[in-house]
Amino acid sequence: MGWRGILGFDYGIVQAPLGPDISGPELVAAVANAGAIAILRAPDWECPDYLRELIRKTKSLTNKPFGVGIVMAFPHKHNLKCVLEEKVAILQLYWGQVTEDIVFQAHQAGVKVVPQIGSVEEAKHAVDAGVDAIIVQGHEAGGHVIGQEALVALVPRVVDLIGSRGIPVIAAGGIVDERGYVAALALGAQGVCLGTRFVATEESYAHPEYKKKLVEMSNTEYTNIYGRARWPGAPHRVLKTPFFLEWRNLPDHENEASQPVIGRSTIHGMEKEIPRFAGTIPNKTTTGDIESMVMYAGEGVGLIEDILPAAQVVKRLVEGAQNLIQQRFTSSV
Amino acid sequence: MGWRGILGFDYGIVQAPLGPDISGPELVAAVANAGAIAILRAPDWECPDYLRELIRKTKSLTNKPFGVGIVMAFPHKHNLKCVLEEKVAILQLYWGQVTEDIVFQAHQAGVKVVPQIGSVEEAKHAVDAGVDAIIVQGHEAGGHVIGQEALVALVPRVVDLIGSRGIPVIAAGGIVDERGYVAALALGAQGVCLGTRFVATEESYAHPEYKKKLVEMSNTEYTNIYGRARWPGAPHRVLKTPFFLEWRNLPDHENEASQPVIGRSTIHGMEKEIPRFAGTIPNKTTTGDIESMVMYAGEGVGLIEDILPAAQVVKRLVEGAQNLIQQRFTSSV
Repeated sequence: MGWRGILGFDYGIVQAPLGPDISGPELVAAVANAGAIAILRAPDWECPDYLRELIRKTKSLTNKPFGVGIVMAFPHKHNLKCVLEEKVAILQLYWGQVTEDIVFQAHQAGVKVVPQIGSVEEAKHAVDAGVDAIIVQGHEAGGHVIGQEALVALVPRVVDLIGSRGIPVIAAGGIVDERGYVAALALGAQGVCLGTRFVATEESYAHPEYKKKLVEMSNTEYTNIYGRARWPGAPHRVLKTPFFLEWRNLPDHENEASQPVIGRSTIHGMEKEIPRFAGTIPNKTTTGDIESMVMYAGEGVGLIEDILPAAQVVKRLVEGAQNLIQQRFTSSV
Repeated sequence: MGWRGILGFDYGIVQAPLGPDISGPELVAAVANAGAIAILRAPDWECPDYLRELIRKTKSLTNKPFGVGIVMAFPHKHNLKCVLEEKVAILQLYWGQVTEDIVFQAHQAGVKVVPQIGSVEEAKHAVDAGVDAIIVQGHEAGGHVIGQEALVALVPRVVDLIGSRGIPVIAAGGIVDERGYVAALALGAQGVCLGTRFVATEESYAHPEYKKKLVEMSNTEYTNIYGRARWPGAPHRVLKTPFFLEWRNLPDHENEASQPVIGRSTIHGMEKEIPRFAGTIPNKTTTGDIESMVMYAGEGVGLIEDILPAAQVVKRLVEGAQNLIQQRFTSSV
């Protein structure tokens, strides 16, 4: 027996689509097999054939449904077409406005649409477009953060907006364990979306040094110093590494385009140079000055104390939530 | 029957000490009579005789215990002495480090010490000094905000730190209704502290125009443009009023000391001029350009839809929490 599922999945737990390659087939299959909602991350450029390979590789590792996340700020028309052709369970969308047309196309293909939004206004647009669920991102989230408010106030406002329309609200940002999960449920959410916690798993494609830092470090900052040239106007939350603390006041006119190359990486099958201040986190293939690369993390990183198998993360959340509710709420109302 | 109380009070609900005069005897007595932890706000200057009058006036309005809040960034030695002499139930402290000596003196007088902190490090200092409970302020809070992280991640970290030492943790910031209350309990807190919700009550001493704005407006910003000369380095969260939006980029070198007077107010019995960019919210006595004065609010302000009697705020929180737990958690674990 588990905690209530949503969207046809066993649980209301979503693994956020994570940076290039981090939530690849291995992590996604592990999370899907555990009964949660796992999401591949589509490349930030048009490459539908590669994306098709990613999806099919994932299908070879699990019989369970899963999703694909697309960042709408980047070219994505052909990638989107591929996702619908492959009829994955969930199309996750971020950083761009969901249209009725996209929702219509997805529904024709039997794909559910789940945008991640950061404000009440954005939630309203998404609901009006006919989406199947909404991920509400709070300011406490790691990686690129569109949310300007914290979950404790933002989730209830979105829930009040959606009212009785039966669209699940999923809370994202700073949630790591069963306490965050149950808190989100209390706020009116029906599910939670976790990023940083899933980066710190055995199956994530993150560089071991990055995973180690997630366990060791506890503090983050909301900044815009990384990836300004490639994706301007996209602030993010990062670990306060020594490199970050040295450069956090990078002048506004400066960006990665004029910086020295500090490493190399294979990203979605392509060889890439990583300049200083690139928005590219180190993955398993990355070489060079790892400690000077961006390391995204949400505010909950101080609660991460170990690298776990992804299935264990899901299990702890579900069993932990049940125990917490039992101990704290069931006995003495 | 109520939700679990803390510190000898009926409930784990704290009314934050609010700006000069806002949580005066009338509001404090109303909250105390409702069974919650009500806190007078001591003046920001030494005036123990006036403070004694405030405490005694409150005692004339309620037989229930209540507290006094002192901002340690301002002169407070004599005020503190007065609070201990008057043996109020709770000494709330903010914006300064609690010492073992203060805790010892308070305990000698039978007064419990409850600091408001904004980080895990500050929580550790407070616990080591022997305090009776800790208010953890999240970044989503209104007024002056020392918290840099959101509650969803910060509360569990403080709870983990304090562990089994039996010291209640109280969550502050963005909490307005039973959803925030139960979420805080899920995160491991034993109580909640509400500011903005209590400003928007019938008994609060806030100017009617300020209360009206709290009902009408939904968005806030974390800023430092108000009160820079009087209390430097003290950022705050405010309503995004038209005045604020016009001046939010006030240059760093500018402050209220060189600005025109835009109104007058009686604050803790003293007549004051209010210059533009003063950190002084309009209270019932204030005249002048009310719309251009600072209006503190937490991120939860979008959930406030009415001006209520303070007792009604407490009742809704308690009954709402019980119903929410019953409906959402008790039936189907």
